[in-house]
Amino acid sequence: MNELRIGLEGVAIAETRISDVRGNKGQLVYRGHWVQELVERYSFEVVVYLLWYGELPNTQKEKEFHTLLASRRFLSPELEKIIELIHKDATPMQVIRTAISALPVAGESWPPGHDQAIDILAKAPTMIAYHHNYHAGKKCPSPDSSLGHAANYLYMLHHTKPSQAMAKALDAYLILSADHGSNASTFTARVITSTRSDIVSAITGAIGALIGPLHGGAPSMVDDMLDAIGSEQNVEPWLRAQLDKGERLMGFGHRVYKTYDPRSAALRGIVKKFASESRLFKLSLLVEKEAVRLLEEYKPGRRLYPNLEFWAAGVLRTVELPRSLYTSTFCMARIAGWSANILEQAENNRLIRPSSIYIGPEPKEKAPELPNLD
Amino acid sequence: MNELRIGLEGVAIAETRISDVRGNKGQLVYRGHWVQELVERYSFEVVVYLLWYGELPNTQKEKEFHTLLASRRFLSPELEKIIELIHKDATPMQVIRTAISALPVAGESWPPGHDQAIDILAKAPTMIAYHHNYHAGKKCPSPDSSLGHAANYLYMLHHTKPSQAMAKALDAYLILSADHGSNASTFTARVITSTRSDIVSAITGAIGALIGPLHGGAPSMVDDMLDAIGSEQNVEPWLRAQLDKGERLMGFGHRVYKTYDPRSAALRGIVKKFASESRLFKLSLLVEKEAVRLLEEYKPGRRLYPNLEFWAAGVLRTVELPRSLYTSTFCMARIAGWSANILEQAENNRLIRPSSIYIGPEPKEKAPELPNLD
Repeated sequence: MNELRIGLEGVAIAETRISDVRGNKGQLVYRGHWVQELVERYSFEVVVYLLWYGELPNTQKEKEFHTLLASRRFLSPELEKIIELIHKDATPMQVIRTAISALPVAGESWPPGHDQAIDILAKAPTMIAYHHNYHAGKKCPSPDSSLGHAANYLYMLHHTKPSQAMAKALDAYLILSADHGSNASTFTARVITSTRSDIVSAITGAIGALIGPLHGGAPSMVDDMLDAIGSEQNVEPWLRAQLDKGERLMGFGHRVYKTYDPRSAALRGIVKKFASESRLFKLSLLVEKEAVRLLEEYKPGRRLYPNLEFWAAGVLRTVELPRSLYTSTFCMARIAGWSANILEQAENNRLIRPSSIYIGPEPKEKAPELPNLD
Repeated sequence: MNELRIGLEGVAIAETRISDVRGNKGQLVYRGHWVQELVERYSFEVVVYLLWYGELPNTQKEKEFHTLLASRRFLSPELEKIIELIHKDATPMQVIRTAISALPVAGESWPPGHDQAIDILAKAPTMIAYHHNYHAGKKCPSPDSSLGHAANYLYMLHHTKPSQAMAKALDAYLILSADHGSNASTFTARVITSTRSDIVSAITGAIGALIGPLHGGAPSMVDDMLDAIGSEQNVEPWLRAQLDKGERLMGFGHRVYKTYDPRSAALRGIVKKFASESRLFKLSLLVEKEAVRLLEEYKPGRRLYPNLEFWAAGVLRTVELPRSLYTSTFCMARIAGWSANILEQAENNRLIRPSSIYIGPEPKEKAPELPNLD
């Protein structure tokens, strides 16, 4: 008889060298480095290199990797046309799922390779920016290969080169969103890879999983909450009213973290550095403090703390990212982690094929006979 | 500590009322019916209804369901254009993955509904046929709503209405390919659904998993094998030569079935009925008999018998399906089962979120401190 483990809680599907989520301690490790340290010292590109190759690049390798990535940002005219043709109500996530699915797999489809991952990672921001500009009636600027991954994305969206501070703020967000253990989308990518399918299929599937609100989160809803609260004197009454109605507070609580989410902690530092004088920063600080206090009052022992979304909203607002692009921007970061997991899964692959337990009716008739080959 | 279960063998992720695979007995049950009985008595549409609603339709419901499905076969001009624009080396599976991803989700994205499933199931054959005709330089015939699902597909491919016998042969193949427990693609669909993502995302992801050769199988390779064998006197020497080289025999052996695959048994009956005089039928019978005997000689105790692919090749050849469309035709049948599983998963949903075990290096530095909210 098969063992019923709905939800697969407590079941590990891989040994991994990529990332480690330590929920009780509020720690996240990428290949032997605390994520907070990585944010302080390196660019997103360097962290992607670390996630994919297992070690930090030297200066030469870093430069080559940046050049290669920057050279792959362009979309083919056919792909641009496909993006234009997707039905007009499509969300940016549906667009990026479809546009990535339309990419050719460079070279052999198995095993997945770094070069294929580079192609997808490099083009994802262009897909989002192209679609965004198209629906705003604007021409999307060509990717600028002198800019880093984060800066070029902001440039394509805003049509002006971002300040170094703004580029670094988004870069930090991308680093902190790049990987997170075997969450549902990463797991999806591994299951698809386990059939010896190609990396385009695996990432297309993972995007589908990230679209689900139980996984993808919604930093834009934190913004909506801050808008609704409006002023410092309204913080406590507003939060109490929500909790009295039994509503969730957006940006608090996490399935794994039972303390402050280390990603949010790092993003808080970023916002403090770049926007400490802003009204919304001060409001956010107060909301955070009051929410944690009130959550303990209303739901004692549940240990609900700020999660990634809470301070992600602060950073994404700071860099003036349109709220409609929050989830797809998260997605474009997570492509790094999905790719790392796909490459790792392929190294030592085994088909992931669970079973299910049939509880439906039994056939009334006798089982049909099978052919006799004797 | 989490329990390491790479591959998830012996782990059940759901209780299901949809299908039951009984590997040792060579039995496959759809909702209380032997698949062989379903093939003899009902159309693909009726079996889809059974899989989705849990019971056979009465005459009125059957008619309504057929009419509804037939009315949804048309693609929008934008979707046709997207199919034309996909890069020219794209396989039919890459095309159908991309075209389904480009479909709007009708109505609310959660919970997934029958109407959304109907839309995808109805359009899938048109997507395949449209792409096939386009690259053959032909105009795809408009779907004919007087024809059933299988017959209309053959009509769009061949430009003539198939005989009843040919339509029934393909219909049988579609029924037998519609569902099969929690295989890797169905599991992918369930994982994606478990995040409360939409049915388009779940099916797009499942197609990605089916692309993998460890899952999707390859009935066209059975055809290639029969071509290579060529004549009855060459059967034994050819098979022995393969086995001596340590090669697999295409169409034999299955992860779950340790006896004759019941689906292949039913398809064998179909080929026998419609093409018993054909040279390839006689050759297939001999190959089957000799292969089972030789596999027992070369790999005693492994119990390698004809699987779905072996007689699927016979049926698909009989209905003159191009070999390049074998996998996508399987896919278009399996959309029925994926949808049934997506609907069932959503009924009583729980996020499927396993863990992984980190075996990478430990950070050298002290863990960064988290914000203090007191």
